[in-house]
Amino acid sequence: MPERFLDRDLPALRRLIADVQLGHVSLAIDGQPFVLPIAIAMGEDGRLLLHGSTGSRWLRVIAEGVPVAMAVTSLDGLVVARSAFESSMHYRSAVLFGRCAPVPTEERVAALDILTDALIPGRVAEVRRPRAKEVAATLVLEFAIEEWSLKRSDGWPDDDDEDVAGPAWAGVLPRIIRYDKAIPAPDLREDIALPPSVQALVAD
Amino acid sequence: MPERFLDRDLPALRRLIADVQLGHVSLAIDGQPFVLPIAIAMGEDGRLLLHGSTGSRWLRVIAEGVPVAMAVTSLDGLVVARSAFESSMHYRSAVLFGRCAPVPTEERVAALDILTDALIPGRVAEVRRPRAKEVAATLVLEFAIEEWSLKRSDGWPDDDDEDVAGPAWAGVLPRIIRYDKAIPAPDLREDIALPPSVQALVAD
Repeated sequence: MPERFLDRDLPALRRLIADVQLGHVSLAIDGQPFVLPIAIAMGEDGRLLLHGSTGSRWLRVIAEGVPVAMAVTSLDGLVVARSAFESSMHYRSAVLFGRCAPVPTEERVAALDILTDALIPGRVAEVRRPRAKEVAATLVLEFAIEEWSLKRSDGWPDDDDEDVAGPAWAGVLPRIIRYDKAIPAPDLREDIALPPSVQALVAD
Repeated sequence: MPERFLDRDLPALRRLIADVQLGHVSLAIDGQPFVLPIAIAMGEDGRLLLHGSTGSRWLRVIAEGVPVAMAVTSLDGLVVARSAFESSMHYRSAVLFGRCAPVPTEERVAALDILTDALIPGRVAEVRRPRAKEVAATLVLEFAIEEWSLKRSDGWPDDDDEDVAGPAWAGVLPRIIRYDKAIPAPDLREDIALPPSVQALVAD
């Protein structure tokens, strides 16, 4: 597979996290592995943030600072080769190793703003500030990255000469994620217009 | 979060795997967790299949039958609430526990066909049969599921009365994945037309 290692390409890692917004976090307890999906964002300072409910059992274990691994994966296209064997995917795949720690109380609201704006850019400015009890119910962690790697696969099908001379089609199908038309909540008042943040996501 | 447990809903698990085509597999070695993304498919017989190169170090460890966990996650939409706190995602999230074992040699080609057609339905019939050396270079594993759960979150924003009476918009943004226009390989002959399997994916 035509894949490239981009180990020290931090801007590429940042773009991947911004595109995917989701990490799969793995931990081990007494040799038994666990894995859970979790919303992630990277601040402009390069801090990798995750958050969830204080009621999440696994998140509380992760917050204790056990060794964790995180995968961030984007499927960017299908590589349709002339044989099944050479068919593959365009992807970007990061794996990060490290440990998590709770973001200090006084920085928690700023971290939550980063997470909110990562998902819906500009949304923080459109909603009220978080209430103290909401902040208290939210576990915000920073993933301290100790080691990471990033691979990218983005080439053409690599068929051998015999297959290229044959009858089968070959090419690439780019894979696109987009948001469909926004659906207002049933209890939304009619005089409230679609906000700029949501408009921008749907227009993308 | 309005989420529902669908533990015994095997058709829902099957749909999720068909939609996502990607699992995140977690394993632990000497207490250190690892996680890797891998293409998956479920056969009509309910067998969960994964495959990769025999050159993949982690896949070879997984093939030895160590305990593994797998997450299969689909982000299906954004729940835009009137507060950041209540904003969330529509998702389907499965976590499976079990162990993997190599698919016996005589069943490997049939398993590869299932994996190929899961990614590009109908493609198997359009390409030549796998060669012996290709099959030998591919590790095909069956994930024997010992335990699993499936959660779905698909509700409306759950804002409190004070926020509902306020000025902020609320609703849901469905998240859609589609394939863009197919790009022929640079070395594709001009007389080879787009095959039905690829046409169908792009039209979806």
